[in-house]
Amino acid sequence: MNGKNPLCIALCVAVSTASFAQTGKKYPDPAPMTHDMSEFWEPQPRIVTPADMDRAVPPPSDAVVLLGLDADDAPEWIGCDGKPVAWSVEDGVMTVIPNSGSIQTRRDFGDYQLHLEWSAPTEIVGESQGRGNSGVFMQGRYEVQILDNYGNETYANGQAGSIYKQSAPLVNACQKPGKWNTYDIIYTAPRFKDDGTLHSHGRITVLHNGVLIQNNTLILGTTEFIGFPKTVAHGRGPIVLQDHLNPVRFRNIWIREL
Amino acid sequence: MNGKNPLCIALCVAVSTASFAQTGKKYPDPAPMTHDMSEFWEPQPRIVTPADMDRAVPPPSDAVVLLGLDADDAPEWIGCDGKPVAWSVEDGVMTVIPNSGSIQTRRDFGDYQLHLEWSAPTEIVGESQGRGNSGVFMQGRYEVQILDNYGNETYANGQAGSIYKQSAPLVNACQKPGKWNTYDIIYTAPRFKDDGTLHSHGRITVLHNGVLIQNNTLILGTTEFIGFPKTVAHGRGPIVLQDHLNPVRFRNIWIREL
Amino acid sequence: MNGKNPLCIALCVAVSTASFAQTGKKYPDPAPMTHDMSEFWEPQPRIVTPADMDRAVPPPSDAVVLLGLDADDAPEWIGCDGKPVAWSVEDGVMTVIPNSGSIQTRRDFGDYQLHLEWSAPTEIVGESQGRGNSGVFMQGRYEVQILDNYGNETYANGQAGSIYKQSAPLVNACQKPGKWNTYDIIYTAPRFKDDGTLHSHGRITVLHNGVLIQNNTLILGTTEFIGFPKTVAHGRGPIVLQDHLNPVRFRNIWIREL
Amino acid sequence: MNGKNPLCIALCVAVSTASFAQTGKKYPDPAPMTHDMSEFWEPQPRIVTPADMDRAVPPPSDAVVLLGLDADDAPEWIGCDGKPVAWSVEDGVMTVIPNSGSIQTRRDFGDYQLHLEWSAPTEIVGESQGRGNSGVFMQGRYEVQILDNYGNETYANGQAGSIYKQSAPLVNACQKPGKWNTYDIIYTAPRFKDDGTLHSHGRITVLHNGVLIQNNTLILGTTEFIGFPKTVAHGRGPIVLQDHLNPVRFRNIWIREL
Repeated sequence: MNGKNPLCIALCVAVSTASFAQTGKKYPDPAPMTHDMSEFWEPQPRIVTPADMDRAVPPPSDAVVLLGLDADDAPEWIGCDGKPVAWSVEDGVMTVIPNSGSIQTRRDFGDYQLHLEWSAPTEIVGESQGRGNSGVFMQGRYEVQILDNYGNETYANGQAGSIYKQSAPLVNACQKPGKWNTYDIIYTAPRFKDDGTLHSHGRITVLHNGVLIQNNTLILGTTEFIGFPKTVAHGRGPIVLQDHLNPVRFRNIWIREL
Repeated sequence: MNGKNPLCIALCVAVSTASFAQTGKKYPDPAPMTHDMSEFWEPQPRIVTPADMDRAVPPPSDAVVLLGLDADDAPEWIGCDGKPVAWSVEDGVMTVIPNSGSIQTRRDFGDYQLHLEWSAPTEIVGESQGRGNSGVFMQGRYEVQILDNYGNETYANGQAGSIYKQSAPLVNACQKPGKWNTYDIIYTAPRFKDDGTLHSHGRITVLHNGVLIQNNTLILGTTEFIGFPKTVAHGRGPIVLQDHLNPVRFRNIWIREL
Repeated sequence: MNGKNPLCIALCVAVSTASFAQTGKKYPDPAPMTHDMSEFWEPQPRIVTPADMDRAVPPPSDAVVLLGLDADDAPEWIGCDGKPVAWSVEDGVMTVIPNSGSIQTRRDFGDYQLHLEWSAPTEIVGESQGRGNSGVFMQGRYEVQILDNYGNETYANGQAGSIYKQSAPLVNACQKPGKWNTYDIIYTAPRFKDDGTLHSHGRITVLHNGVLIQNNTLILGTTEFIGFPKTVAHGRGPIVLQDHLNPVRFRNIWIREL
Repeated sequence: MNGKNPLCIALCVAVSTASFAQTGKKYPDPAPMTHDMSEFWEPQPRIVTPADMDRAVPPPSDAVVLLGLDADDAPEWIGCDGKPVAWSVEDGVMTVIPNSGSIQTRRDFGDYQLHLEWSAPTEIVGESQGRGNSGVFMQGRYEVQILDNYGNETYANGQAGSIYKQSAPLVNACQKPGKWNTYDIIYTAPRFKDDGTLHSHGRITVLHNGVLIQNNTLILGTTEFIGFPKTVAHGRGPIVLQDHLNPVRFRNIWIREL
């Protein structure tokens, strides 16, 4: 999530898993895994053609606007490396500048309703996870996958709208590349006890282009590229948008705390 | 819910409560209640001005269309009294004919995502529960209130989007009378054990004009006009739309089973 | 719960309901109820004869002992009126002195496993709720009923092991009067949001004489003598034992925080 | 689970994972894992010394007795290979005959309360998972680990009372080898939809020697020796006791369906 390496989320995990095997520990570490051990292709989500959502609905009166309909800058956002946002922002559209780094909200949030719209590049480049890939992270830890999944096969638990490597979307409701997709997300943060253990799992509901794709889905822990989800206590946290090297576009982002 | 008496739901309950006190029973009945004992006015839901939703979004490809965008009839519906629907249907708009009776889907449903749009009469008549009142019942038993709640005060747990007399909406997101409101409902039916006792409560999420007003709310039992919710085992059931004597309009109703 | 009036819990509620109808309020109050409106007799819990538990099992090593096996005093307890405990304590047995007031732990607790043993008076006096009645309150608010329910009929949701006026026990597993009963309680406290609204319901599991009588039961709110459960935000709270005018005995009380 | 190979549960899984990589499939399989990838040692559960439970409490009147206090045979059980039980049964004690195969109840169960008592061999042989190892499986699929964990270190999510390779016990409440341990298990089976997908996770609460070690723990899927838990729809199923090559003893097993 730092500016120089947009894939740092996965890489950091790989490094920390490797360093697990250091000497001097009392107990052994779990044996290291590889990313393809947690990629489940079957069953593939059924394809649904959504209604045309290709127009932005304004936020309700009590929403915090994170990216306005006519925005030419993004004051609510900052680079995950702490530097100013390097993505382009023009006429309400914020576009990933590949390799400029992931970004996050300046504010931290707990439970909320989040609306965002995204569009994969009209020109198709790459395949599987390499095509129109980005992601939106709840509290900086739990990724809802963004991917150009229109006519693009990939593992089920990595498809657009998946809780990445945990829960495949109920269906594949992607618009064609270049068209706008909506995500309406209802997020309940996990709660932790004073001793850092889990009180209650996070929960997430996602409508993709108005179609339910996550139904109060249990969040098992952090959404890891490699290995099992992790449970680590935390408080409020930012929304993160991922630079995954593809020029994905965003618009009309707003949030209502619950 | 029969044709001649649109308020039969409440009346039937009142009657059955009264008959509880019959002689010859081994155990006493709970003392009878009145409807105003379960009407809670405070706190009043905060008012939110939603975005203008005054255009119908077509259903996704896998939805069962219960009322089409251009419908001039309503083949998916039947009167709760078993007679043909007596409401008017024209150009995709179905309007309650007061005193003609509530209606229900011919099909039964379990868990689902339901979209519907409704509009209160442009001309304001009545107040509190007497103004623009209707309702949509999950499985014929659990009412999400429909009410012209724009500038119209009533008890919190009877407002538009309430789980009637159980859970007030999180906010009041009503459009002005005459404008169209959307309800996007995610419903998980209760499950019962073989002995008829409850395994798991029903759960419901409602977006009103795109604003979250019920967040995975627990359904405590049937939504009674008088007295406590009741737990009675059941299987699949119809969607019911209530004739509450006001000419409420409906359009663009579709459902996706989950 | 004060010393002079052991039934103050119910009385206070009745008073506050009555005062609801004061003048000058913006919104009406719900109409007042009476206690017999929330007393449900049917179905009566099936009777199960438990194994003989008439011997005290010592606490595990990590428990906080609230009443020791050989205790002659009760340093962990205080009167709900703030005065010293007026109940008798001798040879590990603490006995309600009727009309001396309910008592509570000096410590406050969140989530926990609680073990206690209780015995109704050997000599049967009174009937229904008037016989061997006491109660143990989670966090001072949520009562698990204690009652001599052996061959003593009462409303189902007020029986021994009920979540008082909310959930009847799954079965009636009472020992005969004079014998010792065990309650093993697993309690998860409700969580509240910063604005005082409910995040998650409390949950409770109860084994009565080793027999499951509450199975992860949802706690709907405070256990009111009159009217609907109430939701009021709170933090940690004491265990309360009720003086309900009957000389119920207690022994071997321990708790493990979770 | 067949008679000749007591470790067949793990082996079958390994085989099926291997066969995943067969040719002719449309989609790739996840890369194969090894058993040590899902073994988490830290944090180690805290050690609690339980009360002495070394006496059998008789079942309540409504229990189905699966192994009576004075039993000299085990009519409720059958080998997982369909052959008669080859374990020894004498004076109410049933002992694993190593390499004779796992056994299961003839009856199938849904939700239930299960009581059983077990004892690791007095003579300590082996270490970690090789010492006093057995297991009790809910519905033949979800293992609560049985292990001589007294002074015997092993990975946390494989300790006595773990949901095997999913959830470590909250504490280690083991008795010394040779003494009797009690498990009181409250089990809620998962529910599945008609299409075979999961409606609600299984849930399990376990008291080990009267100490809570699993608190309404979510069961993520089958308890696999290798790899991620699996979700496979099923109905009622038997209780299975595992032959893991150690002469673990059982007594006083009873069940109450919920």
